[in-house]
Amino acid sequence: MAVVKSDIEIARAATKKPVFEIGAKIGIAPEHLVPYGHDKAKLSAQFIRSKRGARDGKLVLVTAVSPTPAGEGKTTTTVGLGDGLNRIGKKAIVCIREASLGPCFGVKGGAAGGGYAQVIPMEDINLHFTGDFHAITAAHNLLAALIDNHVYWGNALNLDTRRVTWRRVMDMNDRALRDIASSLGGVANGFPRESGFDITVASEVMAILCLATDLQDLERRLGDIIIGYRFDKTAVYARDLKADKAMAVLLKDAMQPNLVQTLENNPAFVHGGPFANIAHGCNSVVATTTALKLADYVVTEAGFGADLGAEKFFNIKCRKAGLQPAAAVIVATVRAMKMHGGVAKDDLGLENVAAVKAGCANLGRHMENVRQFGVPVVVAINHFSADTDAEIETVKNFVAAHGAEAILCKHWALGSAGIEELAHKVVSLAESGSAQFSPLYEDELSLFDKIETVVKRIYRGAEADADASVREQLRQWEAAGYGHLPVCMAKTQYSFSTDPHLRGAPVNHVVHVREVRLSAGAGFVVAICGEIMTMPGLPKSPSAERIHLNAQGLIEGLF
Amino acid sequence: MAVVKSDIEIARAATKKPVFEIGAKIGIAPEHLVPYGHDKAKLSAQFIRSKRGARDGKLVLVTAVSPTPAGEGKTTTTVGLGDGLNRIGKKAIVCIREASLGPCFGVKGGAAGGGYAQVIPMEDINLHFTGDFHAITAAHNLLAALIDNHVYWGNALNLDTRRVTWRRVMDMNDRALRDIASSLGGVANGFPRESGFDITVASEVMAILCLATDLQDLERRLGDIIIGYRFDKTAVYARDLKADKAMAVLLKDAMQPNLVQTLENNPAFVHGGPFANIAHGCNSVVATTTALKLADYVVTEAGFGADLGAEKFFNIKCRKAGLQPAAAVIVATVRAMKMHGGVAKDDLGLENVAAVKAGCANLGRHMENVRQFGVPVVVAINHFSADTDAEIETVKNFVAAHGAEAILCKHWALGSAGIEELAHKVVSLAESGSAQFSPLYEDELSLFDKIETVVKRIYRGAEADADASVREQLRQWEAAGYGHLPVCMAKTQYSFSTDPHLRGAPVNHVVHVREVRLSAGAGFVVAICGEIMTMPGLPKSPSAERIHLNAQGLIEGLF
Repeated sequence: MAVVKSDIEIARAATKKPVFEIGAKIGIAPEHLVPYGHDKAKLSAQFIRSKRGARDGKLVLVTAVSPTPAGEGKTTTTVGLGDGLNRIGKKAIVCIREASLGPCFGVKGGAAGGGYAQVIPMEDINLHFTGDFHAITAAHNLLAALIDNHVYWGNALNLDTRRVTWRRVMDMNDRALRDIASSLGGVANGFPRESGFDITVASEVMAILCLATDLQDLERRLGDIIIGYRFDKTAVYARDLKADKAMAVLLKDAMQPNLVQTLENNPAFVHGGPFANIAHGCNSVVATTTALKLADYVVTEAGFGADLGAEKFFNIKCRKAGLQPAAAVIVATVRAMKMHGGVAKDDLGLENVAAVKAGCANLGRHMENVRQFGVPVVVAINHFSADTDAEIETVKNFVAAHGAEAILCKHWALGSAGIEELAHKVVSLAESGSAQFSPLYEDELSLFDKIETVVKRIYRGAEADADASVREQLRQWEAAGYGHLPVCMAKTQYSFSTDPHLRGAPVNHVVHVREVRLSAGAGFVVAICGEIMTMPGLPKSPSAERIHLNAQGLIEGLF
Repeated sequence: MAVVKSDIEIARAATKKPVFEIGAKIGIAPEHLVPYGHDKAKLSAQFIRSKRGARDGKLVLVTAVSPTPAGEGKTTTTVGLGDGLNRIGKKAIVCIREASLGPCFGVKGGAAGGGYAQVIPMEDINLHFTGDFHAITAAHNLLAALIDNHVYWGNALNLDTRRVTWRRVMDMNDRALRDIASSLGGVANGFPRESGFDITVASEVMAILCLATDLQDLERRLGDIIIGYRFDKTAVYARDLKADKAMAVLLKDAMQPNLVQTLENNPAFVHGGPFANIAHGCNSVVATTTALKLADYVVTEAGFGADLGAEKFFNIKCRKAGLQPAAAVIVATVRAMKMHGGVAKDDLGLENVAAVKAGCANLGRHMENVRQFGVPVVVAINHFSADTDAEIETVKNFVAAHGAEAILCKHWALGSAGIEELAHKVVSLAESGSAQFSPLYEDELSLFDKIETVVKRIYRGAEADADASVREQLRQWEAAGYGHLPVCMAKTQYSFSTDPHLRGAPVNHVVHVREVRLSAGAGFVVAICGEIMTMPGLPKSPSAERIHLNAQGLIEGLF
């Protein structure tokens, strides 16, 4: 067998084209691209406005089974399918999320695909890229500074400093900042209070940027952020602090989608990257809607498995942005099916057809779930070299028995040549016009009923459970006019239940809603079920210790 | 009189040229420029290396009298002089510092010059620019995260958490972060300790980036950073935490100088921006040394007045980078002379020749000081419309009596046409070969004697004073091998003394050294004399409340 090249070796060996050539492929004139280096560019706001009346291409969602330590390759498949569609003559654009810088220094690993299905320049995309996340950090922390400054100068708004919900953010894995006491050190530094930092991708500003349709909408949503409560429990908004407009200034460039290319020189928009637990986990609405104006096909992904990622893509992003997905690809691997069937990670190398068969229950559940939204599905089996024919057939047969098709995809090893069959299938599904998309629940349903709808119909739990205080909080928000918002479920991604160890397709579990949070600017109510970490830590031996510049000045150790 | 346009109106009315055209003027081929938009670019490391053997142009420092609330216009004069030299047929490049984002949201004001002597695009330069400061923030905070992470996972280095000197940074005016308690909230968040944030420009990483000669030197200096002390009082270095190489990766692009243009389409390098109190306050060595390879004249500035800025420029930057300044321009204004002569700010509009004459003592002191370094001086009187002929003549006569020339400059109102005379004078000074630059003290002098040398010969104090503990600390550092470092004085910029209200040219004061800090990576020992603020706060009505995007999507309220 040939020597397997690392992702970074493959990426470096690629023949990159100037970003202006990539833009030309989808009809963007050079004057509408703002370059960041020779291989990255932002689309001008003027160009995006000019396309408003154009006809939309077809939107394809790539989602996945419940993630396991075996890895599924959702971004890799998203990128591969984009290349595959271009290969068979369709004009296709890939839309994926930007990577968070902080986690790169914890555990080795990038977020730009892998093998022969990557977006490049991968080092840039995983580090500072075009500065969007830094701008989000700055805008978020400006609001935080204005809050404490307001209190310092007399607290005219009568803000209860114990009830300030707006924390600070940093794009770094730093557990020491999770809980802090600030404004220590005396009178000149303000009024001491408890606070803390989240990682930047968990910022509501990130979710807002990804759901805003343009700069005006962004500014309005920033103003709608609730930063805390007065002593009389009424909400204080970012607008009350006159912070919204300056925040929009800091986010002016970050709002514009970033154009890069795949290894096969096809266009990719990489823009935005909200958490997939306390936020909705999809790339920006602006990137997706703009791509739809420029291509026959737009291939995009959603975070985690379909129970979280696709559910939020449909119920939050598509609902709010008026998107009509034409088809969905569910990524599965033989290895993941084995783990869902009870095999331990160390035993994944051994053929185990029975475990694959058992684990397919997880896949079947996700297929049913996606179809509930009126979107036709196809399964992509992301090939690993140790997969046996019998195991692959088992997955194919399972999917066929459930009225769909599973297609073996070798894009990781072969690029677009390995994913042609899936591309054709996606086209036929999308062209069939069988999609009849609608969200799972109506805006008018009560907030708790929305939560319970997701619990029962997606997670297949017996019920949603919550303390009286949580239910009362939801009722208060309904009374305050927030009842029409969708819910954003924050739950472990590893199981349909709230127990991360419960793989496969559990039923009849109870989902306990521990806490609810109102993201009034983003426009959803977060239901937190279980422990959700919004500021990661670093491992004992972080990859930062090994990341370095080599003698040629190239980055090593990131991937 | 004509309506006076605002800086931003003038900047927007300018006809910008593509940055590749600006590069071509100084012999940089397009492939060696990495564009950030159409009007900003970074120089490639390869290009910089390729110029190593080239002949150097002449280096001109722009410094100033002791600053007053009246404003001196040092950056404006630096930019104006660059344009003036180009106007009279010299190939000249301006080298100035990048602006800090945080303070823009406090008090209105930019750092890109003013009137008809500005660098553009001024909004970008004052906000995110090419992301250098964000990269410095990330590198600084990665090291901080690795410190607490090391302690969390067992503290193998036996670090005394009470003696961690490395704080965190944010490019924001946020007094609430000056003093914090971190790692609160329980076992999972680490060991609680006291810490805090400085503003990014106060980071030692900023000083390092500005003094490093290339990426290898940067990495070495990052490794040399002392982050704290063990229980046995021995130093722990960033290198001990294996943080240095990953930090260099984050700073890879930030190390490259940024090319922009003046309003008259002449080249300007805007790169780096260390504090001028606890650091040396000059743009990067890489920008200055590269510019010298490309131009006949390089015009650069140093922070604050000449007692701080020029002293550090000569004793730290020039010493370490082997620079040989050919001439120095001292910027003075009639208004500043009046204030040094005792006039209150509200009375500046009234002619007061006697006060101008008295205040000139401050200017004279700075002239003498700069000449001590063997650098010939010329005085630029930055013209304000209310200046009277008699007042201007008073300054001219004073300077003439002290063996130099003062030239009235109207670049703010007229651009290069208003500063031709100064440009000619600078050329004649530089061409005369009269410069015989040498730093004020030898490397071999003891650290305290270096401090005292500056106090006596620059500040004209009677003596430097320090507690026994401070002197003992200096002796320990000398024993540890740091005795050869230059000293970096942190003192009020408003007076030669440590009393900011003592204007003019005081003598025989005592300068008390309150505290000393070792910046082992940057390569200097900081002597703190008086209160030095490293994290600013916001005013009661911060300019953030007024900064906004107008209907055309342009930024308003920044300037």
